[in-house]
Amino acid sequence: MTRPLLIRNASQLVTLKGSADGPRTKEQMSDLGLIENGSVWIEDGVIQAVGTDEEICAAYAGRLGEAEVVDVSGKLVTPGLVDPHTHLVFAGSREDEFNMRLQGATYMEIMNAGGGIHATTARTKAASFEQLFEESASRLDQLLLHGVTTVEAKSGYGMEWETERKQLEVAKKLNEVHPMDIVSTFMGAHAVPKEYKDRPDEFVDYVIGLLPKVAELGLAEFNDVFCEKGVFTPEQSRKILKAGIEFGLKPKIHADEIEPYEGAELAAEVGAISADHLLKATGKGIEAMAAAGVVGVLLPGTAYFLRAEFANARKMIDAGVPVALSTDCNPGSSPTVSLPFVMNLGCLMMGMTPAEVLCAATINAAHAINRADVVGSLEVGKRADVTIFDVPNYMKLQYSYGVNHVNTVVKAGRVVVSGRNLVERVDLTGAGVGQRE
Amino acid sequence: MTRPLLIRNASQLVTLKGSADGPRTKEQMSDLGLIENGSVWIEDGVIQAVGTDEEICAAYAGRLGEAEVVDVSGKLVTPGLVDPHTHLVFAGSREDEFNMRLQGATYMEIMNAGGGIHATTARTKAASFEQLFEESASRLDQLLLHGVTTVEAKSGYGMEWETERKQLEVAKKLNEVHPMDIVSTFMGAHAVPKEYKDRPDEFVDYVIGLLPKVAELGLAEFNDVFCEKGVFTPEQSRKILKAGIEFGLKPKIHADEIEPYEGAELAAEVGAISADHLLKATGKGIEAMAAAGVVGVLLPGTAYFLRAEFANARKMIDAGVPVALSTDCNPGSSPTVSLPFVMNLGCLMMGMTPAEVLCAATINAAHAINRADVVGSLEVGKRADVTIFDVPNYMKLQYSYGVNHVNTVVKAGRVVVSGRNLVERVDLTGAGVGQRE
Ligand SMILES: [Zn+2]
Ligand SMILES: [Zn+2]
Repeated sequence: MTRPLLIRNASQLVTLKGSADGPRTKEQMSDLGLIENGSVWIEDGVIQAVGTDEEICAAYAGRLGEAEVVDVSGKLVTPGLVDPHTHLVFAGSREDEFNMRLQGATYMEIMNAGGGIHATTARTKAASFEQLFEESASRLDQLLLHGVTTVEAKSGYGMEWETERKQLEVAKKLNEVHPMDIVSTFMGAHAVPKEYKDRPDEFVDYVIGLLPKVAELGLAEFNDVFCEKGVFTPEQSRKILKAGIEFGLKPKIHADEIEPYEGAELAAEVGAISADHLLKATGKGIEAMAAAGVVGVLLPGTAYFLRAEFANARKMIDAGVPVALSTDCNPGSSPTVSLPFVMNLGCLMMGMTPAEVLCAATINAAHAINRADVVGSLEVGKRADVTIFDVPNYMKLQYSYGVNHVNTVVKAGRVVVSGRNLVERVDLTGAGVGQRE
Repeated sequence: MTRPLLIRNASQLVTLKGSADGPRTKEQMSDLGLIENGSVWIEDGVIQAVGTDEEICAAYAGRLGEAEVVDVSGKLVTPGLVDPHTHLVFAGSREDEFNMRLQGATYMEIMNAGGGIHATTARTKAASFEQLFEESASRLDQLLLHGVTTVEAKSGYGMEWETERKQLEVAKKLNEVHPMDIVSTFMGAHAVPKEYKDRPDEFVDYVIGLLPKVAELGLAEFNDVFCEKGVFTPEQSRKILKAGIEFGLKPKIHADEIEPYEGAELAAEVGAISADHLLKATGKGIEAMAAAGVVGVLLPGTAYFLRAEFANARKMIDAGVPVALSTDCNPGSSPTVSLPFVMNLGCLMMGMTPAEVLCAATINAAHAINRADVVGSLEVGKRADVTIFDVPNYMKLQYSYGVNHVNTVVKAGRVVVSGRNLVERVDLTGAGVGQRE
């Protein structure tokens, strides 16, 4: 038995309660279920009560002495953030390629210099299980330090069985031994390998042949495909996603990122749980997603990093698409571990409101990976994943931009990050500064 | 006597040596003076030697035992960052106004709800010296935690003598007791106060009347004006800046932010040390600045926060303007304390390279506030202000975006921020994670 944990007296507590009715759309996205002076009582990793500090202290009056107390006066408390689209498990880093791009190099020049997805594929293939595990664990540490407590992770840097399997097994092991919860997606169809360049349909059949193995070994819940002109056609994507459904792998789709390609429409047609990117999704595709309840996972960090046009979040929200946000953490198009920064891009580059981006990075993100029953809101019975920010309200979390405001992270009732109070971290012991006291 | 400080074995040491020849332009901005496996020997707050670890250890072989050693293996070491344009000293925060704006409120609706610069003016006027001091000290702490060791601070939330003086005296006191170095600018001409609305020329005369007092009390080195359509005309701005010169206050100018208004041209004409913002600077203005050697201080955080078009940094660099970067830290248009994030915007929103943004936030920024003789590069005889980032090279500092990579900050030879190694900060003692070892 561990001691109960009492998180006390948040300046604002964002509960996002009422999550049972499917992902949130339109004005529901702004309904944060705010409690002022809010507290949360946690036992055995599960939320037992949520309310004002007065209510919680009255309900547990006889047991207050028993609890470990985290005082969060003046701070904002939210559900642990959920990052529903990452390519977490990879080897190496590609800053040289980034530098070439900013110096004006073309896509082909970068490819000829050994850049692009195939650089990561080669390194991931060459890496040992232990090396991949360590590099990925370090990214998980940093995601936690930026307030994320549940993350989706895709394979896709193998595009052949041994490496795809290695990636998924690294994710599985990390899910067991790291505080982060990881939800796995198989993405054998991430790109067409060079050796299949002239016979992509054979590669599609090869990927389809891997699906029963993935399912049998219990290595993934989702099946994702990069549906994009020059990569996989809507027909090939449909074939791969439908084959996955037969083996219990729910469809996800990289859709309409670079050109409109009916990816959003396909997501609605096959009943995908999410369609991701959507920079070039058509009005028709957006309507289809809204009608089918497909979550639109937007990745504004990727647009920022690639200097591309941002997805039209406002149009999607207005059309009734439930919108989520994600880092797209990967070494080529989005090398970040900061979902809070992606939320800020949601406000300033896509015109979402401070309330909407919180919904998009918690309960709607949880819906995008089929975890809304356990995380994404602060409600009785849910897992006690809680992020505490060093700002007094949810508006200031976005207003005070460019800074990581995460102060404390509670994962399944346990404090895993603490004391990130920026001001206290300055050494005030030396000459001069001491005079401030 | 304090012990010598030895910063040892940086994966990359960015010296930016050769700073005596004025601010850097064009391809000089990319010449970082990199040393691999670099070390720095510091005594009495001053840099004594910079070189490879081998060189430094050979030169100080007999004294290594004497020194306090900071091992920076695998890390990037740069000059302490210099932030040359902030409105540091103010009271209060305006996230409510930001939230209204993202919900679609117009400028006038926000003003009518009590927002805008006059909200900050009223709060700053009402604040005690102590309150202003504490709020500003907290911002300085956070600037330090983001790698900044020298900052410019403007008055301008009084627009009447007592409050302007209070702001400048707070900055002066902070400069004395906080590790941060602060360089002060008088900006009585920040806006036209309501009571002078119909007689702006009288206000110009009032501001000019304050200049001798500012000079006499030694409260500022620079004199700044907001030259913008609807605020101060180029004629009024010229009058104020020229009057300042008579009292030894060097001109700075908020130029061409919202509309082209010949601010850049005026900066060149009056010999301003910098012209700042420049989103709408004309080709003619840019040429004039280049010819006169006026530093262009770009504030992409402000464009980001206001959802405006970014300044054309490439055009300015190509034309020979020495470009610097700054946060513009202020509660209305740029509530950030992260110069590293502003550097990243420089790359991704303005097309600067990872090398150029480093030059722009160190030696060129130092030139913009007349401090290039003491800070902005790592050279023998300069003040030992050093920032250590937890990345192996300067390209990765920009590539790995949205994250504060600052690990350690040395100010005048003293470690004032330490141990911000993100990975080590996760609590690895609990169940589960321990298995990683
Ligand atoms: Zn992706
Ligand atoms: Zn300004």
